[in-house]
Amino acid sequence: MDLKEFLIKNKNKDIVAVQGLGFVGAVMSLVVSNALEKDYAVIGVDLKENSNIINSINNGIFPIKSSDPKIEEFYQNSIKKENLLATYNSDAYSYASTIIVDINLDVQKTSDNKGNLNSFDVDLGPFKKAIRTIGKYCKEDVLILVETTVPPGTCEMVVKPIIEEELSKRNLSTNNVKIGHSYERVMPGPEYINSIKNYYRVFSGINEYSANETEKFLKSIISTEQYPLTRLGNTNATEMAKVLENSYRAMNIAFAVEWSRYAEEAGVNLYEIVDAIRMRPTHANLMYPGIGVGGYCLTKDPLLASWARINHFNGKENLKQSEKGVKINDKMPYYAFEYMKRAFDLTSIKDKNILILGVSYRSDVGDTRYSPVEPFYLSCRNEKAVLIETHDPYVENWEELNLKVSQNLDILLEKKWDVIAFCTAHSEYKDLKLISKLINMKNVMIYDTIGILNQVDIDQINIRNKVKVLGRGDI
Amino acid sequence: MDLKEFLIKNKNKDIVAVQGLGFVGAVMSLVVSNALEKDYAVIGVDLKENSNIINSINNGIFPIKSSDPKIEEFYQNSIKKENLLATYNSDAYSYASTIIVDINLDVQKTSDNKGNLNSFDVDLGPFKKAIRTIGKYCKEDVLILVETTVPPGTCEMVVKPIIEEELSKRNLSTNNVKIGHSYERVMPGPEYINSIKNYYRVFSGINEYSANETEKFLKSIISTEQYPLTRLGNTNATEMAKVLENSYRAMNIAFAVEWSRYAEEAGVNLYEIVDAIRMRPTHANLMYPGIGVGGYCLTKDPLLASWARINHFNGKENLKQSEKGVKINDKMPYYAFEYMKRAFDLTSIKDKNILILGVSYRSDVGDTRYSPVEPFYLSCRNEKAVLIETHDPYVENWEELNLKVSQNLDILLEKKWDVIAFCTAHSEYKDLKLISKLINMKNVMIYDTIGILNQVDIDQINIRNKVKVLGRGDI
Repeated sequence: MDLKEFLIKNKNKDIVAVQGLGFVGAVMSLVVSNALEKDYAVIGVDLKENSNIINSINNGIFPIKSSDPKIEEFYQNSIKKENLLATYNSDAYSYASTIIVDINLDVQKTSDNKGNLNSFDVDLGPFKKAIRTIGKYCKEDVLILVETTVPPGTCEMVVKPIIEEELSKRNLSTNNVKIGHSYERVMPGPEYINSIKNYYRVFSGINEYSANETEKFLKSIISTEQYPLTRLGNTNATEMAKVLENSYRAMNIAFAVEWSRYAEEAGVNLYEIVDAIRMRPTHANLMYPGIGVGGYCLTKDPLLASWARINHFNGKENLKQSEKGVKINDKMPYYAFEYMKRAFDLTSIKDKNILILGVSYRSDVGDTRYSPVEPFYLSCRNEKAVLIETHDPYVENWEELNLKVSQNLDILLEKKWDVIAFCTAHSEYKDLKLISKLINMKNVMIYDTIGILNQVDIDQINIRNKVKVLGRGDI
Repeated sequence: MDLKEFLIKNKNKDIVAVQGLGFVGAVMSLVVSNALEKDYAVIGVDLKENSNIINSINNGIFPIKSSDPKIEEFYQNSIKKENLLATYNSDAYSYASTIIVDINLDVQKTSDNKGNLNSFDVDLGPFKKAIRTIGKYCKEDVLILVETTVPPGTCEMVVKPIIEEELSKRNLSTNNVKIGHSYERVMPGPEYINSIKNYYRVFSGINEYSANETEKFLKSIISTEQYPLTRLGNTNATEMAKVLENSYRAMNIAFAVEWSRYAEEAGVNLYEIVDAIRMRPTHANLMYPGIGVGGYCLTKDPLLASWARINHFNGKENLKQSEKGVKINDKMPYYAFEYMKRAFDLTSIKDKNILILGVSYRSDVGDTRYSPVEPFYLSCRNEKAVLIETHDPYVENWEELNLKVSQNLDILLEKKWDVIAFCTAHSEYKDLKLISKLINMKNVMIYDTIGILNQVDIDQINIRNKVKVLGRGDI
């Protein structure tokens, strides 16, 4: 079905264009095309170089694999309703009453080979270009809803002037355009759809009219009765809210880092301490120590915030603590690698066979973007481990490293390993059969970087092997 | 009633001695003497120089005023049961089957007059002396339960050797003494008793026997069915848990500081952003900005932890982030003072009348220990404000400054003020009558350091006055 046919088929529906078909945009498209409150037709737009995603959506294969069965259910429903199309044709924007911006906005980090962040920059170029494309095609009274995580100030200082400039060039009024901001809290994994449809949202607009229209649209796609919306005073505020909440999380992980070192020195088990403290409702979000921080957001959002403080608001200084959080976290996997060598008294890993269990950045999810397992893996490779194999139930192809990942743990465990390292806390790794296999091994170094093994199991495994856990003293 | 009479009267009961009758020990004594599971007789012991507290307890006047009615109820019940005595006589320890250590352990901070922490030290001297006194008198099979927040390592490295040394000197066995650690989470205020009796506890012992006995004792005084106990592997772990949980809180407040500055620069309201983010259960503990951090714990515990990492465990380095948290927080009140001058364009406050609403460090509590309002007040005084008056519904005498504090807001508000500063978020200050008085004033600078005023009220007050809020941009 081409664009024309699609428009004819959906001629009585409100057209919603979604710019960017990545982890957020693709699933956002499903949610909008399955809205219960209103009958939308959704056109997902991405760049020509992402034709594989576009074709996949149009040809009946949803491009994102997920443990959330609702993804496939929603997608099949969209196919049946014939109200979802993907295209690289920017013309699509000209039919839309609402355009949702779900493109990436990246931070360029420069780090050394020990994870030290030397500098970073934010290039708004690609983002501006995408907004300009919208401006070139959109209706003059369109609602542009920005969901991208942007440096605070961006809707006011970047999006609004570009759209107005392009409307003016086309001799259109600049008085009727509506620009809203409402950041997503998408969580790939078993609650993928729910993290959009059934979760709290914060929103704002560049003026009251924009905020009202944004609210109306969000109400038509999200269960706002159960998860009420929060309106903030202006787009600066919602933009700041998003990077603040991720900075908060990043910094709380960074906080656990120095306590992990302390726990190792003092011979105590930080996981058990964290569990004890978490019983207090006021301290339930204390983070565990671990191999590091990954994913698309926590690794960059504090930097976006800090950059904007200087570049958008002429702030007095950068966000020292928030930047520090990222810096500390970036080094975690390198420390985890060094700790492995120290804990097992390895002067070199040259002649070692290493099995890495889990490569994604988060448990029970197949997302390897900025996974901390990546630098850990690369450190093993750089120091020339003789064999490194990886296993992950959710990742077949480790895109960033262009590496096949095994799904067959049984076969892997038949080989002789020097080190087996738990790197992602997938539920599969808590399996009793796996534990009993570890118990029956001999002279294997078991390295738990995420505290997935419990003390009883550790004691059993330790009889014939050697277990070390990151973030705790000797066992 | 003297000690002898008391012992005769309570001759069939287990004697519990509580060392230290401050905010924790005094109320702990009440909880133990009112235990339902077991019939204890409690002897509170303090130093002779604290005879006022001792006499007060013995003469029918509980020395701590509290908004928790259970305090008086428990105290009256103890009087009726005649199972509570206070004394400075160390002999009391010789009758106790359990001795609870609730003395202070302070950090000595050296700061300049802008709140910059130049250095700090931990003098274990007074703590060691108190433990030695116990060792000189206690039974050889006593349970010593340390509740004091101590540098990690203290029970093993300080308490145990001192007690053993003193027992040996008295030719007593060192095999039967039991030393446990279980830190309190006492919160003065309306839930004072509940914060001991009905709350989660973490505990440990220097050996399994000690841990078992500690558990048995705690079960006899705390509602552990509803609030289960958590046993940790050793005393280092529980000691670390306490300073970790307070460091976590201190650091989360410090985190809010740089975002407050950012919000001021970006013209947004950080309070509204924090409220929006807090709707996420995973982010419910994000802290508000404010005038500063006070109280006995958060201002020192991260330092205790850092000190012990070096001095007890030969750690690689100090706890840089946790120390940084304290340093940032210590400067908050000075910033709040400077912001007041900047926000209201005051080159000097010399000729100004300033009314400070709230002096305690926490809302709805009369606790002025290390209150951030103290440096704020002193800054006003140092810069020679012509008149500074203070109001607090819970504080009549500001001990640290030896200052009378008014309880009569109506009379105070009849005077003409240049600046009225909200410094503690007492519920009383949300009163509509107060707001309407502020609305009817004219040309008063209203300074809200804790975000207690809402936008509707601010708009109303602003018609004839000028409101500024710490942590948010211009209104």
